[in-house]
Amino acid sequence: MIAVLKPGASPERTQHLIHWLEEQNLGVHVSQGEYQTVLGLIGNTAKVDMEMIQSLDIVESVTRVSDPFKAVNRKFHPEDSVIQAGPAAIGGGHFALIAGPCSVETEEQITYVAQQVKKAGAAFLRGGAFKPRTSPYDFQGLGEEGIRLLLEAKKATGLPIVTELMDIRNLPLFEQVDVIQVGARNTQNFDMLKELGKTDKPILLKRGLAGTIKELLMSAEYIMASGNEKVILCERGIRTYESTYTRNTLDLSVVPVLKGLTHLPVVVDPSHATGHAHLVEPMAMAAAAAGADGIMIEVHNDPPHALCDGAQSLTPEQFAHTAGKIFRIREAMEG
Amino acid sequence: MIAVLKPGASPERTQHLIHWLEEQNLGVHVSQGEYQTVLGLIGNTAKVDMEMIQSLDIVESVTRVSDPFKAVNRKFHPEDSVIQAGPAAIGGGHFALIAGPCSVETEEQITYVAQQVKKAGAAFLRGGAFKPRTSPYDFQGLGEEGIRLLLEAKKATGLPIVTELMDIRNLPLFEQVDVIQVGARNTQNFDMLKELGKTDKPILLKRGLAGTIKELLMSAEYIMASGNEKVILCERGIRTYESTYTRNTLDLSVVPVLKGLTHLPVVVDPSHATGHAHLVEPMAMAAAAAGADGIMIEVHNDPPHALCDGAQSLTPEQFAHTAGKIFRIREAMEG
Amino acid sequence: MIAVLKPGASPERTQHLIHWLEEQNLGVHVSQGEYQTVLGLIGNTAKVDMEMIQSLDIVESVTRVSDPFKAVNRKFHPEDSVIQAGPAAIGGGHFALIAGPCSVETEEQITYVAQQVKKAGAAFLRGGAFKPRTSPYDFQGLGEEGIRLLLEAKKATGLPIVTELMDIRNLPLFEQVDVIQVGARNTQNFDMLKELGKTDKPILLKRGLAGTIKELLMSAEYIMASGNEKVILCERGIRTYESTYTRNTLDLSVVPVLKGLTHLPVVVDPSHATGHAHLVEPMAMAAAAAGADGIMIEVHNDPPHALCDGAQSLTPEQFAHTAGKIFRIREAMEG
Amino acid sequence: MIAVLKPGASPERTQHLIHWLEEQNLGVHVSQGEYQTVLGLIGNTAKVDMEMIQSLDIVESVTRVSDPFKAVNRKFHPEDSVIQAGPAAIGGGHFALIAGPCSVETEEQITYVAQQVKKAGAAFLRGGAFKPRTSPYDFQGLGEEGIRLLLEAKKATGLPIVTELMDIRNLPLFEQVDVIQVGARNTQNFDMLKELGKTDKPILLKRGLAGTIKELLMSAEYIMASGNEKVILCERGIRTYESTYTRNTLDLSVVPVLKGLTHLPVVVDPSHATGHAHLVEPMAMAAAAAGADGIMIEVHNDPPHALCDGAQSLTPEQFAHTAGKIFRIREAMEG
Repeated sequence: MIAVLKPGASPERTQHLIHWLEEQNLGVHVSQGEYQTVLGLIGNTAKVDMEMIQSLDIVESVTRVSDPFKAVNRKFHPEDSVIQAGPAAIGGGHFALIAGPCSVETEEQITYVAQQVKKAGAAFLRGGAFKPRTSPYDFQGLGEEGIRLLLEAKKATGLPIVTELMDIRNLPLFEQVDVIQVGARNTQNFDMLKELGKTDKPILLKRGLAGTIKELLMSAEYIMASGNEKVILCERGIRTYESTYTRNTLDLSVVPVLKGLTHLPVVVDPSHATGHAHLVEPMAMAAAAAGADGIMIEVHNDPPHALCDGAQSLTPEQFAHTAGKIFRIREAMEG
Repeated sequence: MIAVLKPGASPERTQHLIHWLEEQNLGVHVSQGEYQTVLGLIGNTAKVDMEMIQSLDIVESVTRVSDPFKAVNRKFHPEDSVIQAGPAAIGGGHFALIAGPCSVETEEQITYVAQQVKKAGAAFLRGGAFKPRTSPYDFQGLGEEGIRLLLEAKKATGLPIVTELMDIRNLPLFEQVDVIQVGARNTQNFDMLKELGKTDKPILLKRGLAGTIKELLMSAEYIMASGNEKVILCERGIRTYESTYTRNTLDLSVVPVLKGLTHLPVVVDPSHATGHAHLVEPMAMAAAAAGADGIMIEVHNDPPHALCDGAQSLTPEQFAHTAGKIFRIREAMEG
Repeated sequence: MIAVLKPGASPERTQHLIHWLEEQNLGVHVSQGEYQTVLGLIGNTAKVDMEMIQSLDIVESVTRVSDPFKAVNRKFHPEDSVIQAGPAAIGGGHFALIAGPCSVETEEQITYVAQQVKKAGAAFLRGGAFKPRTSPYDFQGLGEEGIRLLLEAKKATGLPIVTELMDIRNLPLFEQVDVIQVGARNTQNFDMLKELGKTDKPILLKRGLAGTIKELLMSAEYIMASGNEKVILCERGIRTYESTYTRNTLDLSVVPVLKGLTHLPVVVDPSHATGHAHLVEPMAMAAAAAGADGIMIEVHNDPPHALCDGAQSLTPEQFAHTAGKIFRIREAMEG
Repeated sequence: MIAVLKPGASPERTQHLIHWLEEQNLGVHVSQGEYQTVLGLIGNTAKVDMEMIQSLDIVESVTRVSDPFKAVNRKFHPEDSVIQAGPAAIGGGHFALIAGPCSVETEEQITYVAQQVKKAGAAFLRGGAFKPRTSPYDFQGLGEEGIRLLLEAKKATGLPIVTELMDIRNLPLFEQVDVIQVGARNTQNFDMLKELGKTDKPILLKRGLAGTIKELLMSAEYIMASGNEKVILCERGIRTYESTYTRNTLDLSVVPVLKGLTHLPVVVDPSHATGHAHLVEPMAMAAAAAGADGIMIEVHNDPPHALCDGAQSLTPEQFAHTAGKIFRIREAMEG
């Protein structure tokens, strides 16, 4: 870590800072420039509170030389992680489609959709039982009953299931769930992350709506630091000034960036990002071409009647078409 | 609510949509234009899932005529709400300074700071016991012990205390806390909001890091819809492309905008927004001049040794100086 | 256009507004709701200043039913536009790679790069003669001499050339340039757009750094309304809060969105957006898979010595590799 | 300047970079860490292309120790600059109100408004003759005739005038204009900035819609580096994700930040930022309290009939009221 001091930093305050840094078990190399002093910090800087140092009034800027994340860091774990969930795998060359409705509604609906997406090549079934909604007056999901219905669909098709946990107090209900999803609004719910770190279930961790790449990795670090190494990262669109024609801005460059920084698999969710069914196929293809390890797509047997996020859903027929194109892109990349 | 259909919308699909809307107990007025059809929706549209309709592929745009929020809406509650907490009040002409350290560290520290900020005119003591930190390796707060120390400081000074709840499972520890703070990362932790809605404690609800004004109001609506009317809104800076010279961008226009839309009091936190002690005073003065009902300022007796967010803190002496200037601004506004 | 008035709008002020709207040659249909009045505006609303109406204090919101853009609008021009430049074409199924160095440096450099990118399948040579740089102390391009060198490279290879115009007073120097590029900082330089609208040269119009989709289309509309129909739109990354790992955020959803809204071809520039050579190939492939009509890539024979934007450039060998992969993606999409 | 190299940087490539840096007349101090190498660059780093170095693939990060701006830098010019224009002054304790209509319409209008705002305490008259509009179909201003009318109003009141230049070819028309405004869309029109740097007129330079603080200072540096030291900086709102209730987000923290970084005066424009008349007064007061050297406010004698940006304008009566409150805030700050 490099700290550049402000030009006017007094020798006393500089010494005070150096002393404080040494108390944190850091080695400090002082380099006195013509105008300014630069401190090089050596030791376990991942445990140093960079923001705190940054905010000191004698400090002009702080730059990390080493990354603040360890467990997720590809530097210390060069091989891709492969996350296994029942018969399905993701990462390290294993590409997976994750498909299903925004909300679970009935047993017929979820089982039918599960069968259809399995036929089209999906490896996981997704479906919302607990739904985060901006308004308290919007449909909030079937809750526990929704999980029961997902498990029926799993029984019928063999597809491992992915569903979102919103309240850590509900964790016991997720015992038979294969992959627990952490939604964009909970990416920095640190107590939840710590708790999930004590389970041995794969966690699909969505990027926050305004989450930086570093923050996403640090949230994965929370899970891994608590003992659970099975983390799947998911890009789902970020909030930008453009929201007229797309709901959020899908940030696909995050795919190669994350693949460089971490060994964890990276999945893309084009349905939530765009908010419009007709944009899902082109963005799913783009995500595949960008190198994503998996793509998560909303599929509903009757989009206009869906209880939530209806028409960002594809029909099973549309999904089969899109899946075919995605697989062709994957072949072209390997060919 | 006004829904504008796309030019090519077929009569069948249009009828299908109208039928569906009527099933939601809405009246539908159809207005056929030269190129496009416009639907006017009448009834309890606050309970209609606008995003769902927006996403239908025959729909071009949806505009709410009435707001999606009811309980927080000034239209239905024209008088300012006054939130009382022990001897202190905020809103409806009651202006309050909320001050204290980012983290509670020791009994001496928190009691000393409490005495100092009280002397300078603060009406509330703030202090973090549970701290949300981006890195699992950063200091996470004293937890339960931190709350105990805050209560000691309260006993010593009479100041009501404000502190953050991060994990709903810890709610029982907050029984003697006067105001429960919901941090920016939990603004849309809907299960937490519902639970807090069942308490009768004032809730200081911070705006999310990329939270819209509407989302902030909808989160307050979650609390109020569950039965708790004591909500204080707090602007604390939003994430924008500019992050070199300030940590976040303090959005002060939100103060008059919120005061127009809702009867709830609005507080500004310039310490977290700017991240630099030397920016706190000018932005606190600006917040007062913009009409804020309260200002929350970090104060620490020894900023360079603070365990978190150290040097965005003012010393007690700096705080007294800033408080004096804020009170002069308040007088100038009334004079 | 639909204008929703605020609940308290007085009958006098409402009449005043209606009268004013009628003076603008608009038909006004008044629809009186229980709480609020809604005005439907009919006529040539593309010429109505929506922002002005929006800002009136009795107006709550304004929604366009018809788009504010006409000439660029696919509704009135359903067929794809094909832009021809010498032997090359772009749009309507014609896919083109545009490649070359950020800055033209020497005749050897530009001719060598031109030959190499042609061999690898590029249809256009790009190169900067006039360079927009944030700092007055950075290299500003060779200027007129740069254009002369580009024309030499064109003579040597037959590739049509694309280069940026920064100052409208330099237009006479662009007489033999095939495609004039308008950079992100000039997307809303309206006087320049009007002047370019009087030429008959293809214009490659880059999206502004914080430009909305609508603004990009309106800027194209400026060119077309002045008489020039040959406009190519270019996505080059937008400014968001994330700027640590990528320079800007490449917004690929804009490709299918624009293809739906307009008949103009859409090109993507992954080099400037990402700012890093190793991200160019995955994002170029993603752009192709998203349906772009062309991709613009920086290629330099000696990136570490490039005078500007050096290491976001690919070497000619890297470009040939990337071009091969892009063409395979294109085949997979058609196959 | 500090460049941190990536862990795997080979000795050859590192030597290559060091050699290249030395060719740029920089001294290079190499500091070899356990994992990574850090280069300290000494010399005239303001003239070094930091972005270029940042983009090299062996470079992990680059941090400036010294600022890239010189002429505007308070470090080298600690005293506030005072910009004089006729009888009026701004900066260095001179506070000024700049007021007038968005667009000049008629001689009666502009002269009447000028008289009214002068009476209320304005020191400058502003008015648009050339108007940047998103749509080619919106009113574009009276042009040359607008300037003539402004000069009539100046003759009638003695107020110096401020008006926007959009096309550098029109500079000769601005000979009698007192302050030339560069709008948000031209903040990085570098050729225009260079040309204005050759005049001796005060330039009111607006921040770009997504302009960083550094970019604003670098644009001012363009003007100053060309010889003109009379630059006034203007905050006018930035583009963020929030655009429902305000047009842009007024970034007031920029006021104390800029006052720390530069000696140039800083003005705030709350009218364009908010887009709503009822938000202008609170934000103008906040801007004054934040320490702005001047405030620019739109005033129109008949807002609902204004040809552009009508209802973000105050009436002369409202302006007089607001001006009174601003002056009271100024007194409270000094008292």
